[in-house]
Amino acid sequence: MKVDSMIEKQDLLDCLDRIAPFIHRTPVMTSRTLNEMTGTDIVFKCENFQRMGAFKMRGAMNAVLCLSEEQRQRGVVTHSSGNFAQALALSAKTVGIKAWIVMPSDAPLVKKDAVRGYGGDIIECDPDVRSRETTAERVQKEHGATFLHPFNDYQVITGQGTAGLELLQDQPDLDVIMAPVGGGGLISGCALAAHYFGNGCRTIGGEPSVVDDAARSLASGRLETNTTAVTIADGLRTQLGDKTLPIMLSHVERIICVEEDEIVAAMRLIWERMKIVVEPSGAVPLAALMRERGAFIGKRVGMILSGGNVDLSRLPF
Amino acid sequence: MKVDSMIEKQDLLDCLDRIAPFIHRTPVMTSRTLNEMTGTDIVFKCENFQRMGAFKMRGAMNAVLCLSEEQRQRGVVTHSSGNFAQALALSAKTVGIKAWIVMPSDAPLVKKDAVRGYGGDIIECDPDVRSRETTAERVQKEHGATFLHPFNDYQVITGQGTAGLELLQDQPDLDVIMAPVGGGGLISGCALAAHYFGNGCRTIGGEPSVVDDAARSLASGRLETNTTAVTIADGLRTQLGDKTLPIMLSHVERIICVEEDEIVAAMRLIWERMKIVVEPSGAVPLAALMRERGAFIGKRVGMILSGGNVDLSRLPF
Repeated sequence: MKVDSMIEKQDLLDCLDRIAPFIHRTPVMTSRTLNEMTGTDIVFKCENFQRMGAFKMRGAMNAVLCLSEEQRQRGVVTHSSGNFAQALALSAKTVGIKAWIVMPSDAPLVKKDAVRGYGGDIIECDPDVRSRETTAERVQKEHGATFLHPFNDYQVITGQGTAGLELLQDQPDLDVIMAPVGGGGLISGCALAAHYFGNGCRTIGGEPSVVDDAARSLASGRLETNTTAVTIADGLRTQLGDKTLPIMLSHVERIICVEEDEIVAAMRLIWERMKIVVEPSGAVPLAALMRERGAFIGKRVGMILSGGNVDLSRLPF
Repeated sequence: MKVDSMIEKQDLLDCLDRIAPFIHRTPVMTSRTLNEMTGTDIVFKCENFQRMGAFKMRGAMNAVLCLSEEQRQRGVVTHSSGNFAQALALSAKTVGIKAWIVMPSDAPLVKKDAVRGYGGDIIECDPDVRSRETTAERVQKEHGATFLHPFNDYQVITGQGTAGLELLQDQPDLDVIMAPVGGGGLISGCALAAHYFGNGCRTIGGEPSVVDDAARSLASGRLETNTTAVTIADGLRTQLGDKTLPIMLSHVERIICVEEDEIVAAMRLIWERMKIVVEPSGAVPLAALMRERGAFIGKRVGMILSGGNVDLSRLPF
């Protein structure tokens, strides 16, 4: 398939070698209780233990390490108010280059503080897509900075795919890999990893019903849009891009949509039973599995717990 | 020292062999951020990932496995409304024997449900010490059940000590082991492990200031009592016993008392930075280290994260 030529098997292996010194090889965990509850053999890839608290570190680090020397000297810029903002700030700091992060003026203070804590330089913009993009373009022009998209970028997708690659290196006999779907960077990278390194391993996504553009895009074959971004899974509010959708059309079997209360219930189960902190987005695949548990009984499922960055003052329970 | 003859080096090794098939060998975790914040090299022994969610599983399992065949047939009884209640219920279920758990009638429903979930048979009593003890005695007489104390028992202390033994097997070069102090079962077991298996490894406890009987007992050399049990660290409300105090007098260097807000702050740090769920009692040693951080700078500290059983509906943040 033509889409595979953009990211080949060796690209994933090379990427993991490149970023390995700068990221954590996160552990896999299991839960007897959750296996009994679901009738499924689940292994959780704990990207909540990743540096900066989420898988986004992989893609950001890879993109930064792939810059030319000249690009490094001019720095990088992105627009994000989520984990990618922090990941790019920390990645840039790690290699000693400048990072400008365009964030809406109404972004939560805790997120701005986190970006500053990792050494990022915040440029505020109005809280709309147009202002976000023009502000990022201005920084590109003024400083010659390289723009890095949070997910619609082959280097970023390849980086995120190393989570799936590591998982399959540790657990080669998975029937299914499940991941949450926002912009599609994580799941398209992991789907390629399953395709190249799995043994008949399928890839299935989980997505909040209220922002189900990915499920509709897989059905229609073109980029669909959402009419709202109001989901507790704040990492999944974005829509697919023109680089992630084609990979997903080729390699993601399907997407299971879940309701908000199912996300909260799955998140609570993980906290209570596994004693680990995952953010709502990270609990979406478990919610998806539990919603359609009949389809997974007896299967061996690798599940990406995508991140653990939550505001403890604003928990849903 | 005479006290050591009650639990010898080989007893700890034999105990670990005995219980190993029935417990998790919990991982050790580190946090770059917490190390930078404290100037200390901390390794966390994650007993929050232990079966049933706390180290209490070790002592309960050991005590149950040390019963004679005749004792097994008659079952076991304890009085506890905390983690030991659940640990004994699950240990008894694991070897197929009966467990009666005496709990006050006003114990939280969530705790009663947990004990029942592990197959324990709850006997309610009035919410005072006298009723608790007479009820436990009645069960002993009626059923011939063996009474197992939550901490003032050499088999239980030895079991808890295996947390320290495993930690030193994984990290032999610790300067200090830190553990929370309630009845003293965990810290006295770990102090013996440090004594037998450490290389000059000292043992230091953390205790809530409002229930500082252990700190006062170490000072006076006799069992002191508390006038309140109102601390957020619900696992540490109990007082030392006549078996734990002598071990602690010989092998615990000192106890650092911490305020309630320091416990909450340390708990929050662990949740936010390490992305793991610990109960308030489990955060007390970190609170103690941070309170007197000057004493630990440059040291290598093994810290027992004692448990992760919290009611998510009643968090302090």
